[in-house]
Amino acid sequence: MVAVPAGYADLLERPLYGHLATTRPDGSVQVSPMWFDWDGELLRFAHTTKRQKYRNVQRNPRVAMSISDPDNPYRYLEVRGDVERIEPDPAASFFRRIAKLQRRRTSPRRPAAGRGSLRRPGLGGHRGAPDRVQQALIHRAHQ
Amino acid sequence: MVAVPAGYADLLERPLYGHLATTRPDGSVQVSPMWFDWDGELLRFAHTTKRQKYRNVQRNPRVAMSISDPDNPYRYLEVRGDVERIEPDPAASFFRRIAKLQRRRTSPRRPAAGRGSLRRPGLGGHRGAPDRVQQALIHRAHQ
Repeated sequence: MVAVPAGYADLLERPLYGHLATTRPDGSVQVSPMWFDWDGELLRFAHTTKRQKYRNVQRNPRVAMSISDPDNPYRYLEVRGDVERIEPDPAASFFRRIAKLQRRRTSPRRPAAGRGSLRRPGLGGHRGAPDRVQQALIHRAHQ
Repeated sequence: MVAVPAGYADLLERPLYGHLATTRPDGSVQVSPMWFDWDGELLRFAHTTKRQKYRNVQRNPRVAMSISDPDNPYRYLEVRGDVERIEPDPAASFFRRIAKLQRRRTSPRRPAAGRGSLRRPGLGGHRGAPDRVQQALIHRAHQ
């Protein structure tokens, strides 16, 4: 089990998104918002195999995520860990689950323009065949 | 000059904070919220020399920052770049400037508890002598 600091579990349980940092093949860092699913032990993300971020975690499984409390910018949680496993999601069941969470979490706002660096966090550019959708599971968190 | 994607400059100009990713000495990534100052060319952060993040950028200047639009979670900007220089701030003038920006930006909320992973973004644990406060300037942004 991963020990979440006392009083901070809500940041994993509330309808928030995190900023996931990965390492690119050239050793530089990359960070962008992503939706996640937390089951008390593992964080799960939906990746597509076409994304740089997916290639990053295949090569270097060490990642970190920062989650801020939108009601209090001085309050945040950082999770560091290794991607434990990458699970193919050929039926896109996890993909649909996290998309459903996302719809529930997101209040109606102006639609995303879908260009440039504007992407759906966690579902960035989720085009392509369903078998390209992957889950990346973070475990072995660094305390 | 750094080219900001058209239509995204507001994310650097509005009273938002970013999530700054750095690389730790062991090669793993670290990410946490930070206030920043943007002058159209450089991003500036206030670090203290006692923080791991400061030690990280001394060793590996490549950093990345993710900024989300709080009004639209599908809209964000990622900035990647190298720390161009680290400037001592013995009179804490930059420190005070960013703290002032921060107060102006932050609506009154419950006070930070000041423990655990709860820190002032960008001013994390800013104890110690003023000459320990540093600016890290990011330039040479990766396009």
